Amino acid sequence: MVKLKARIIDLEVGRRMVLLHEKDAQEIGTLAHDWLKITSGKSKLVTFVDTTKSYLKQGEIGILRDVYDKFRVREGSMVSVSPAKPPESIKFIQKKMNGKPLTKEECYTITQDLVNHRLSDIQIAAFILAEEFQGLTMDEIEYLTKAMVDTGVVIDFDRPCFDKHSIGGVPGNKVTLLIVPIVAAAGLLIPKTSSRAITGASGTADTMEILADVEFDAAELKEIALKASGAIVWGGKLGIAPADDLLIRVEHPLNIDPVGQMLASILSKKLSVGADHVVIDIPVGAGAKVTTVGAARKLAKSFVELSERFNMQLQCGITYGGQPVGHMVGPALEAREALIALQGKGPASLVEKSTELAGMLLELGFIAQPSQGKDFAKKILASGKALKKLREIIEVQGGNPGIQSRDIDVGNHTAEIKAPCDGFVTNVSNNAITAIARAAGAPREKGAGIALRWKRGYKVKKGDVLYRIYAERASKLSDAYNMALEMKPVTVEGMLLHKLPESP
Amino acid sequence: MVKLKARIIDLEVGRRMVLLHEKDAQEIGTLAHDWLKITSGKSKLVTFVDTTKSYLKQGEIGILRDVYDKFRVREGSMVSVSPAKPPESIKFIQKKMNGKPLTKEECYTITQDLVNHRLSDIQIAAFILAEEFQGLTMDEIEYLTKAMVDTGVVIDFDRPCFDKHSIGGVPGNKVTLLIVPIVAAAGLLIPKTSSRAITGASGTADTMEILADVEFDAAELKEIALKASGAIVWGGKLGIAPADDLLIRVEHPLNIDPVGQMLASILSKKLSVGADHVVIDIPVGAGAKVTTVGAARKLAKSFVELSERFNMQLQCGITYGGQPVGHMVGPALEAREALIALQGKGPASLVEKSTELAGMLLELGFIAQPSQGKDFAKKILASGKALKKLREIIEVQGGNPGIQSRDIDVGNHTAEIKAPCDGFVTNVSNNAITAIARAAGAPREKGAGIALRWKRGYKVKKGDVLYRIYAERASKLSDAYNMALEMKPVTVEGMLLHKLPESP
Repeated sequence: MVKLKARIIDLEVGRRMVLLHEKDAQEIGTLAHDWLKITSGKSKLVTFVDTTKSYLKQGEIGILRDVYDKFRVREGSMVSVSPAKPPESIKFIQKKMNGKPLTKEECYTITQDLVNHRLSDIQIAAFILAEEFQGLTMDEIEYLTKAMVDTGVVIDFDRPCFDKHSIGGVPGNKVTLLIVPIVAAAGLLIPKTSSRAITGASGTADTMEILADVEFDAAELKEIALKASGAIVWGGKLGIAPADDLLIRVEHPLNIDPVGQMLASILSKKLSVGADHVVIDIPVGAGAKVTTVGAARKLAKSFVELSERFNMQLQCGITYGGQPVGHMVGPALEAREALIALQGKGPASLVEKSTELAGMLLELGFIAQPSQGKDFAKKILASGKALKKLREIIEVQGGNPGIQSRDIDVGNHTAEIKAPCDGFVTNVSNNAITAIARAAGAPREKGAGIALRWKRGYKVKKGDVLYRIYAERASKLSDAYNMALEMKPVTVEGMLLHKLPESP
Repeated sequence: MVKLKARIIDLEVGRRMVLLHEKDAQEIGTLAHDWLKITSGKSKLVTFVDTTKSYLKQGEIGILRDVYDKFRVREGSMVSVSPAKPPESIKFIQKKMNGKPLTKEECYTITQDLVNHRLSDIQIAAFILAEEFQGLTMDEIEYLTKAMVDTGVVIDFDRPCFDKHSIGGVPGNKVTLLIVPIVAAAGLLIPKTSSRAITGASGTADTMEILADVEFDAAELKEIALKASGAIVWGGKLGIAPADDLLIRVEHPLNIDPVGQMLASILSKKLSVGADHVVIDIPVGAGAKVTTVGAARKLAKSFVELSERFNMQLQCGITYGGQPVGHMVGPALEAREALIALQGKGPASLVEKSTELAGMLLELGFIAQPSQGKDFAKKILASGKALKKLREIIEVQGGNPGIQSRDIDVGNHTAEIKAPCDGFVTNVSNNAITAIARAAGAPREKGAGIALRWKRGYKVKKGDVLYRIYAERASKLSDAYNMALEMKPVTVEGMLLHKLPESP
């Protein structure tokens, strides 16, 4: 047992880590990424090690912020250190790497070690890659789902609870801002938790934040949802299924999202808010997460099978995801478009998609007869009850219930992109639209984004405005504009590509 | 392009990383683990990002040591930051994850990005796991080998060069201290680079360090080896095949060692010192890296196939690895035993193994007739020429050439473990012996270790000493002793395990 002098380093790096001088690490017989047991008085903790040659003297131990929060010691006090056994879940991750299915207990242990910050990024990557390469059985997905629910906050509304989720990838998908008030106006409880954009131009939470606060804890969400019969809040502050956030942090740089883990992550979030009637939106198309209807059907089947294990009524809607939903992309622009759609003046793609999905929920809740859901949803929309309900939700979430679409500020630096020739719009690229909106500042600069004038199938004349870019800052507008010229997100057929030979 | 104020953080964490306030990271549109381009005056660098909520204020960028070394800025100066594209090799790692073989250029790009610290631990883990799950073709192994050589220091002796390597796992394997002087005494050049123990009780470099210095750079190694016709140095300071160290750092916590990568790592180190005649020792047995002769044969075949692609004369020796080699485990004890063996008084297992492997090198070098190598090696050993040669090497490496085995200090805290009954020694566990020697302080406390009195097949009487534990400190002796009582590394058949029923 080696004793080292504590040096508090007020630095967070997102994982529990202490720093040792390389020579001390050698003496203790530990390596960077190993686990170390540290003890001081009654405080005990298992943490990761990193090593340094210069920052510490030999005989010192650097206590970083994330460790210090759990292990309070005074600067200069002595800390006993010894190598710790790796957490038990390492064995189970190895087991999965070797292609063997995990038991319920093993799935629990991995999830617990994950949320207790006992796994390194490398180990988390190993688990995700093992899931990707070896696949997960439906049993494993069930165990992981349950474990993810149980290791986080669970909200119990004590009554039937409705929810929807889109697996994402399509820009402009502000359907939640229509679906939640339609469903809530019909008398069903729909406490929707949403995410902020990670790689997109606006997450539902980013868009809703234009209209109201979205950061609430679990008790506040419960109060809001019971008051208004619905809510649209950011999921990140609720503490539900925290394992998911920790996995996403590693999945993102790996650029993979194992299907089984995605199923577990989505359903665990739904189960954590007590949702027992759920509609899943699976957009299909180039640039969406799922590119073929065949793949979407397979995924839908897995969602249904998993939901049955939790006695959840779940239905998937495979939707057209080949171009943006509606015309607006970016938080403020999307909030505007949602308000306009609730006033009955929305674009067809947005209204159709929203009422289809809302209708599925109304049917699941026996508010509408089978196959009458969409009509019922359209009626609620047309009656103005959905708009009224959204204003009610906005008020309960601390926003201005009287807000009008014209009150919403959008970026005042704008640029227009025009059709290079006569023809038809044959493609609007999801990926390019998202990239340009992000270059313009979205989602962080909320007024930034893109307003599409025309979408697929429309006839345009040379010089017609195809879309307008909005930005809050001139420099970002210029970045976005240049990117637009390069990426050409809207294709107009009839464009002359080459003349061969170049001169006749 | 966002501008942030530089704050130098004199902290190394083993990877190029800057720290941003979470809100700035959001604004820039970057996440922890993403790549960021930083610019200040003429300095430009692509680095990883981590985020903090407390250590920095908004508007600041923390420049950690590993970045600062490549990107000199003054405290408080302004640094422009923007998201950077991931390095190209990310695509190739994804390709390998998808099971597609990599081209020569792709293997080079990955290796270059690795040694230039442009890959995160997560990406490195993804590459290693892809190698493990998808396997590597012999072409890929060849490309990686070459890339690992080319991205490091290469030493050219401009004459035939001999070398040996053990793939490891067996404690007490001090054969290099016999093989190198035997081969050098025969007039062949053998500039042996060795590792320190990572998970073992003593690496060859740890053992040799008892007798002489082992830390040299490439120019010094060249001088030493040409002077003495041989050398035994630590590989870590030479700068050869640096990709290997970076991979090991991640393989260790993953507890995997993909075969193809192991082949590439070993041969790249041999090629980097210009070795064109190589013997590979593949110990087989419980607790060794390879547990069956079948697996060893398969591995040997791969070694031979790879070596042929580099015009290397390579032969594998499959050796018995079911228990420690010789009787001594731990740096000082092993150095003692090696000296004694060079005086002709070594234990059979050590002398047989050393002369077999040395003999293979003598045959490869046409010093001995086919199948006469071992006898030739034994003659050199018996003549005292090998001992004389080791003393010469010790002298050139700055040690005391007159050193005697009794001059070598071993730990003066000792404990003996005795036979619990009459019987035969039926097993000596490699893993348990290593664990106990490490608990006693090896390899860092060089006098710590284990001296085995009896090995497999010996007849012992109840109360006979089975082995002695050495430690430099009483506390470590006590740790090791308790571990020994628990792990029982030496099994004596005849031991009564249970009486059933417990009382008659």
